[in-house]
Amino acid sequence: MSETSLPNGVQALVFDTYGTVVDWRTGVLDEARAVGRARGLTLDWEAFLGDWETRSILDRINADQLPWMTMEEVHRRALLTALSRHGIEGLRAGEIDQLVHARWRLHPWPDSVPGLGRLKERFLISPLSNASFAGMAWLAKFAGLPWDCVITAENVRRYKPHPDVYRTAVSLLGLRPEQVMLVAAHNYDLRAAQREGLLTAFVPRPTEYGPQQTTDLAPEGAWTVVARDFLDLAERLGV
Amino acid sequence: MSETSLPNGVQALVFDTYGTVVDWRTGVLDEARAVGRARGLTLDWEAFLGDWETRSILDRINADQLPWMTMEEVHRRALLTALSRHGIEGLRAGEIDQLVHARWRLHPWPDSVPGLGRLKERFLISPLSNASFAGMAWLAKFAGLPWDCVITAENVRRYKPHPDVYRTAVSLLGLRPEQVMLVAAHNYDLRAAQREGLLTAFVPRPTEYGPQQTTDLAPEGAWTVVARDFLDLAERLGV
Repeated sequence: MSETSLPNGVQALVFDTYGTVVDWRTGVLDEARAVGRARGLTLDWEAFLGDWETRSILDRINADQLPWMTMEEVHRRALLTALSRHGIEGLRAGEIDQLVHARWRLHPWPDSVPGLGRLKERFLISPLSNASFAGMAWLAKFAGLPWDCVITAENVRRYKPHPDVYRTAVSLLGLRPEQVMLVAAHNYDLRAAQREGLLTAFVPRPTEYGPQQTTDLAPEGAWTVVARDFLDLAERLGV
Repeated sequence: MSETSLPNGVQALVFDTYGTVVDWRTGVLDEARAVGRARGLTLDWEAFLGDWETRSILDRINADQLPWMTMEEVHRRALLTALSRHGIEGLRAGEIDQLVHARWRLHPWPDSVPGLGRLKERFLISPLSNASFAGMAWLAKFAGLPWDCVITAENVRRYKPHPDVYRTAVSLLGLRPEQVMLVAAHNYDLRAAQREGLLTAFVPRPTEYGPQQTTDLAPEGAWTVVARDFLDLAERLGV
């Protein structure tokens, strides 16, 4: 889509963060391998990561089948299940914490910080993440993400793709849906945002799930913008 | 209080913003005078400001006698009352908006931005304001306030000094109350925060209400720290 056909009323860009802004997989793998080495565990950590699965917990929270809990509590619960499935016993509380909090210290993709810096000149920029509020604030500090503010699922007590997350973000920003654009590497997230009337930008992160990634390599909807990375996005938005 | 006796577990500083970080009165007066000149109104704008009073509305919202409304709606409602009391009629919608949104474009006190920059090196820093979320985010962008995140009354749907505002801030930050310090120029705010177990820093802003200010010139409680300004606060916190 050419920038001349872009709606010119966009005032805020909200960003999925894990995967879209930062490389969660490498950071979490590094931390898991460090714990494994210290414990003398021989394990396929990449396979383990595949089993450290949170979606089913998030869906049950959204359906009121589980009470609200922060992403740290979700990750802890999912981790204990995965450890047990892999027959790993006796990790210390500090090691569990280290693995859960690995997501507070992740590195951005190379274009993320320079791209956000440019986009911030024109737009209000915020994460819109399933992270905990504190997790997202400390991650921004660690990674130097220049957000204007922080909005996460915790501000809503629902997890993406629940419609309330997008609605609350629009409301907190004091804008109409068509004045807000979600930037994400995940088609499911853009689909939910589009359903609520937000504009959408797809930025593929083809190694988010490792070199064998098969999903989210290409746009699967009529997104407002498709960009190679955040610098290309700035270009396409005329910044 | 000497810095050596400070609890060393403080991780986050939250700041009252209107008055404590930015000079709301000068900015709002400038905007009001501009509207007045354009309209040919002769009026004592300083007296008018005294009548543009929001506290009674905030208290009624906290008591569930009025539904939740953002600070823009509160200011609009209070403004219409004050205009009517001063016999001012026929302001256009755009002029009302201009006055209400004056608080999105205010200038920081001279020490605010350099002080926040220093404090941010050590602590997570956030506003904890009765502003709307959007109002606080756009103000930060206008004034260059380097927040790590933004927390306002709108995240709680209660106004300070309601205890839920302080409790929710502590909870969103993922901390315990004694790990959070409220920085404010207002004793009533510090009193409410202290009651919830937060640490407290009083920074007087003796001209916030103009040259004749009689309130909040001195600490009225046993606050954890009393500092001349934000640079002095950084010094006292050992940054």
